[in-house]
Amino acid sequence: MTKHTIILQPSGRRGQVEEGTSVRTAARELGVEIESICAENATCGKCMVLIEEGRFEKYNIDSKREHLSPVSIEEANYFKRRPKLLKDKGWEVGQVRLSCQCRIRGDVLINVPEESRGNKQIVRKTARERQIEIKPAIRKYLVSMSPPTLERPIADWERLAKGLETSMALVRGEEEKLPRWHELKIDYQCLRTLSKTLREAKWNVTVSVWNDREVIQVQPGYVEDSYGAAVDIGSTTVALYLCNLRTGELLAAESEMNPQIVYGEDVMSRIQYTIEHPDGLEKLHKAIIATLNKLLKQAVKTANMSFPVGDDVRAQTKQSPDNREALLEQEIASDDGLDTAGEHRLLDQRPRNGISTEDILEMVLVGNSTMHHLVLNLPPKDLGLAPFVPAIHESIDVKARELGIQINPSGNVHVLPTIASFVGADTSAMILAEEPHKQDENWLLIDVGTNAELVLGNRKRLVCTSTPTGPALEGAHVEYGMRAAPGAIERVHIDEKTLEPRYKIVGEEEWNSGKAKGICGSAIIDAVAELFRAEIVDSRGRFRKELKSKRVREGEAGWEYVIAWAEETSIGRDIPITQQDVRQIQLAKAALFTAARTLLKRMNLQSPDKIILAGGFGSYIDKEKAMLIGLIPDCPLENVYAVGNAAGDGARIALLNIEKRNEIDSVTRKVERFELPTDPEFQNQFMLATSFPHMSEPFPHIAHLIPHRKADPMAKNFMK
Amino acid sequence: MTKHTIILQPSGRRGQVEEGTSVRTAARELGVEIESICAENATCGKCMVLIEEGRFEKYNIDSKREHLSPVSIEEANYFKRRPKLLKDKGWEVGQVRLSCQCRIRGDVLINVPEESRGNKQIVRKTARERQIEIKPAIRKYLVSMSPPTLERPIADWERLAKGLETSMALVRGEEEKLPRWHELKIDYQCLRTLSKTLREAKWNVTVSVWNDREVIQVQPGYVEDSYGAAVDIGSTTVALYLCNLRTGELLAAESEMNPQIVYGEDVMSRIQYTIEHPDGLEKLHKAIIATLNKLLKQAVKTANMSFPVGDDVRAQTKQSPDNREALLEQEIASDDGLDTAGEHRLLDQRPRNGISTEDILEMVLVGNSTMHHLVLNLPPKDLGLAPFVPAIHESIDVKARELGIQINPSGNVHVLPTIASFVGADTSAMILAEEPHKQDENWLLIDVGTNAELVLGNRKRLVCTSTPTGPALEGAHVEYGMRAAPGAIERVHIDEKTLEPRYKIVGEEEWNSGKAKGICGSAIIDAVAELFRAEIVDSRGRFRKELKSKRVREGEAGWEYVIAWAEETSIGRDIPITQQDVRQIQLAKAALFTAARTLLKRMNLQSPDKIILAGGFGSYIDKEKAMLIGLIPDCPLENVYAVGNAAGDGARIALLNIEKRNEIDSVTRKVERFELPTDPEFQNQFMLATSFPHMSEPFPHIAHLIPHRKADPMAKNFMK
Repeated sequence: MTKHTIILQPSGRRGQVEEGTSVRTAARELGVEIESICAENATCGKCMVLIEEGRFEKYNIDSKREHLSPVSIEEANYFKRRPKLLKDKGWEVGQVRLSCQCRIRGDVLINVPEESRGNKQIVRKTARERQIEIKPAIRKYLVSMSPPTLERPIADWERLAKGLETSMALVRGEEEKLPRWHELKIDYQCLRTLSKTLREAKWNVTVSVWNDREVIQVQPGYVEDSYGAAVDIGSTTVALYLCNLRTGELLAAESEMNPQIVYGEDVMSRIQYTIEHPDGLEKLHKAIIATLNKLLKQAVKTANMSFPVGDDVRAQTKQSPDNREALLEQEIASDDGLDTAGEHRLLDQRPRNGISTEDILEMVLVGNSTMHHLVLNLPPKDLGLAPFVPAIHESIDVKARELGIQINPSGNVHVLPTIASFVGADTSAMILAEEPHKQDENWLLIDVGTNAELVLGNRKRLVCTSTPTGPALEGAHVEYGMRAAPGAIERVHIDEKTLEPRYKIVGEEEWNSGKAKGICGSAIIDAVAELFRAEIVDSRGRFRKELKSKRVREGEAGWEYVIAWAEETSIGRDIPITQQDVRQIQLAKAALFTAARTLLKRMNLQSPDKIILAGGFGSYIDKEKAMLIGLIPDCPLENVYAVGNAAGDGARIALLNIEKRNEIDSVTRKVERFELPTDPEFQNQFMLATSFPHMSEPFPHIAHLIPHRKADPMAKNFMK
Repeated sequence: MTKHTIILQPSGRRGQVEEGTSVRTAARELGVEIESICAENATCGKCMVLIEEGRFEKYNIDSKREHLSPVSIEEANYFKRRPKLLKDKGWEVGQVRLSCQCRIRGDVLINVPEESRGNKQIVRKTARERQIEIKPAIRKYLVSMSPPTLERPIADWERLAKGLETSMALVRGEEEKLPRWHELKIDYQCLRTLSKTLREAKWNVTVSVWNDREVIQVQPGYVEDSYGAAVDIGSTTVALYLCNLRTGELLAAESEMNPQIVYGEDVMSRIQYTIEHPDGLEKLHKAIIATLNKLLKQAVKTANMSFPVGDDVRAQTKQSPDNREALLEQEIASDDGLDTAGEHRLLDQRPRNGISTEDILEMVLVGNSTMHHLVLNLPPKDLGLAPFVPAIHESIDVKARELGIQINPSGNVHVLPTIASFVGADTSAMILAEEPHKQDENWLLIDVGTNAELVLGNRKRLVCTSTPTGPALEGAHVEYGMRAAPGAIERVHIDEKTLEPRYKIVGEEEWNSGKAKGICGSAIIDAVAELFRAEIVDSRGRFRKELKSKRVREGEAGWEYVIAWAEETSIGRDIPITQQDVRQIQLAKAALFTAARTLLKRMNLQSPDKIILAGGFGSYIDKEKAMLIGLIPDCPLENVYAVGNAAGDGARIALLNIEKRNEIDSVTRKVERFELPTDPEFQNQFMLATSFPHMSEPFPHIAHLIPHRKADPMAKNFMK
């Protein structure tokens, strides 16, 4: 066979391919995936490429030879129906080709535009930038069948499965290990409406296949997109992300309070509720399912508000009845056996005015182990009782209809794996999003809520643990605590000479302007750090009563430092940080610090190479201040990252890429879990960790903030 | 390694095995499966063998050597608790051993008693005798886990899966391709109660696994048996067989009228009902599901009435509290690390007073294509409209809970494949039961109801078709037709000289005695054949009006032949066979005959080597008479078999042997379907076939019955 050289831009891949190979197949052979959804029928246009050199018409290098097969009637018709597309892009037919149709006859240089590239990637910005390939569990295939006849009365499912086998092979390429038609399955509920749909659709349907095995939706005509939801169920907040499974696009992000909060503020009290009430589990389960269904409806509404007007293909087939004639003309003109179904194939590209919850074909769920159990209706009792055992670690797929989740009833709910009783599927998702298991460096991942989960390690070994931190780090149970809303003090600075504060209020541009209403979480960390740095509290966290400042005083509930005087507030009362507030932060940071230290010890490390702070906590605090009070271990400040809702990100990644599910299943199987010890020696260490660090030795990276301090022998002892 | 010779009786298998191999493993290596359910823990006793020569104690050939390892404490204890067993069988310990415990140290001759043999077989008598291996989809494994601790707080499911992996490997042997623990799945509904069950069972459970993959039931302690139901849904009658999945034993056979009959007598009128009524499908579906649930309850009741009193193991653990002490003693005495769970393992062998529908872990369903669609809640519309297409051919597994079938909700309903619109899963089951696809000869299988399905062929090729036969062959729509109950004439003989009849009545010993009430199906075939043989009707089926017999007369509805005079009956009226009755039989036999002839032609055959008649029809008719009137093609009479409910048998086979399911899936994929033609030429052939055969040439095997007949040129023409 004659071979020709083909070069693909922008990847620069090149190689020899046999004459007669289609450009799409040639590209695949060279490792460049080009999209296609119509089973190479020249109808979807997903596989458009630009011929840079060696084009048939104008630009061919050697005019005596045809470097590509001429534009076929189908191709010409495809572009004829899309004059706007060509005009907008400034392309002309011949320069732009359908890569499934044109065949190699000589050397060519081809440009694959971004929109035609298969395995699309979305960029995620995190500790480092990285790309996520779009490889969803759900894929759509157009299947055109010849209708049954008395001579060939093969059953509907087998007819579809055989057509699907062909479409899958064409779209995915033969090197993929795809099932034969009789290995394909159809979800039972989907089977129930199959016969009706096939006939209504005149045997041209788009089939959604889950995991290359199971047909879960059959839609009339040509349908391009399908949708999925990624959900992070927190004890306090439930966040749902609606995504386009083909493009990875985020269409809506919705959140709601977790309704279970009325049955108990933290996980332990909710577990307790299920133990004490015979219908407790059922109540908590139904409450969260109702919220998921509410969020799904909201997300669909949001997505539809911003839903793009149908692209030109849709607009054409929707608006111009004369296109039907054009199509019929094409059918008549066509000589290569496009079956009569070809007409319906295009006519049935029903324009959609929006998406419905039925179009959501999969949901990926993450949450801590208790949320995991409650959403799956599994009794959480043993999560809360020694030896603290979950019902299941492995990820699980449950039909949405079994859980009453109102996506497509044939769709699956994929729940990420849990690691331990207090290290749940949210931690698995965080690992998936941040990928410590792919690093040579040692990374410390911390997700803080009322409970903190910590993961430390690298590609060889990951260890994890969890610790209760109390509500203080989230700004709760603090005397004047409030959420980060207008009027909340969000930043605090204390002059170490005058002991006078400066503060910034949410919604105000300037420091020390506006009326304060309370203190939000970040300001509490700030304030405690500043109290320590200005030596208003000592290294044990006690107020120094000898100070000559009217801001340091004995209040009703003990000693306190006034940040804002009554006249500077909108509530008409002084806003202080109390001894009690400082204590709470001390306990929380001691818990977090000893947990981190336990893991570092297990890994034989002095400090991590990078610290990743996940969750809202990480985003709002000043990482320098956090390190100053010893909330996080010592580490170069530029290597401390706040990544936001990493659990939600991980859920989205698992939704968009099925290979990532196997990856996290396998990683979590190997993560080593450590329970924090409970012996007196450990308790002692914990108490020592309530002190603030105050010398350059153990925390060199914040030493410049407290250059005047002398080493405290006790603290030295602790850091050993 | 030293090797020793081992001989296994009664199979006579022999070979060399390595010293130290357990007898059970050695037997497996030599191709002899020995039962075991306790994962080789010396608790189930399923693996007992008798040492014929080379025994440790008495019978060892060479007293200097030990041919088997000595009886262990566990083994001794096992037998100590079963004195009755030893006494009844006349065995002594040492002669009888647990093959999982004793290890080869020298040459031995071993007898594997019937009850210890694995892959048990049930014998099915049919066209030929054959054995069905018991290889159910459901297998049970005893799994004993160490409870979770703070140090090893692995989740419940993973703990179970790991234990199960071990048990499966021990019970099934390593050569089987069994899944690793993380490839095992647990049904979602089963997972919901897992944590509770494991703790209540003190970590000793019996796990039921479906298809070597999915855990569908977890029961406390040691449970030996599980159950399954095989169901044949006929248009008229629904038959359910309850089986023990371990032994294959049939525990109950129940049947009920198909409740859908009120919506339409035959399949076409039921299909019509679903088309005409919006809720028609739902009604028909719910009706059959309700009947299945009723049959399940009845079957369980029947099985429990005859349920054997607990075997000696059960009796022992149930009745003798002092055995607990014996067991504890054993635990203390034992030195080989039987974990403390060992105690519960035996104590938890809860005696069962019977089985419940929850214990039924699988159902296999067969039925014609319409029954198949209705039970699966699939719209049957296209089964009844050209081009007559089912929704699905392939077999399908649906969770019982999705269908509302009240077996264990995690259990599956396996529905056998359909072949065509009028050749359903009942025909698949018939093929599975009779195995024409394994023959060198050409077999013709006929299942007759109001519709007849025919399958013809051999191991190389199978062809099939179906034809409506009307209700006459089932004895319906016949003037004095009735079912085979006391008073029904079941046999008729007519003297060809005197034209006087003799008849036999159901329930009477003697011919011509008793009072007749009507004619049942078999007597109608008999009577028509005799009318023809005695030349009372001619070869076209017309009464010969010239005959001098008062029995042949013109009645109210045309000519007729009186079988019983009014005074011989209990109804006080003459009981005749009418011209109309004869016509109906002629039409039915013409339909059946042309269908058979079409298949024979396709296979290029003159006649089949064997004819298998399935269904009630085959059992009650006189096959000689059937051949005389041309109801079935010519064939040596000794090669015509009536096999009863072959569809029900096939369902049972599929229930008891999972490999048979793959077999029938693959066979039905290859069966060639032929629709009977509808052209005028075929219509003409059909009309010719209404004639009775009357010469020795085409039907040599019944020629002796009508030696005096002359060839009819028209019939000769037809047979060409």
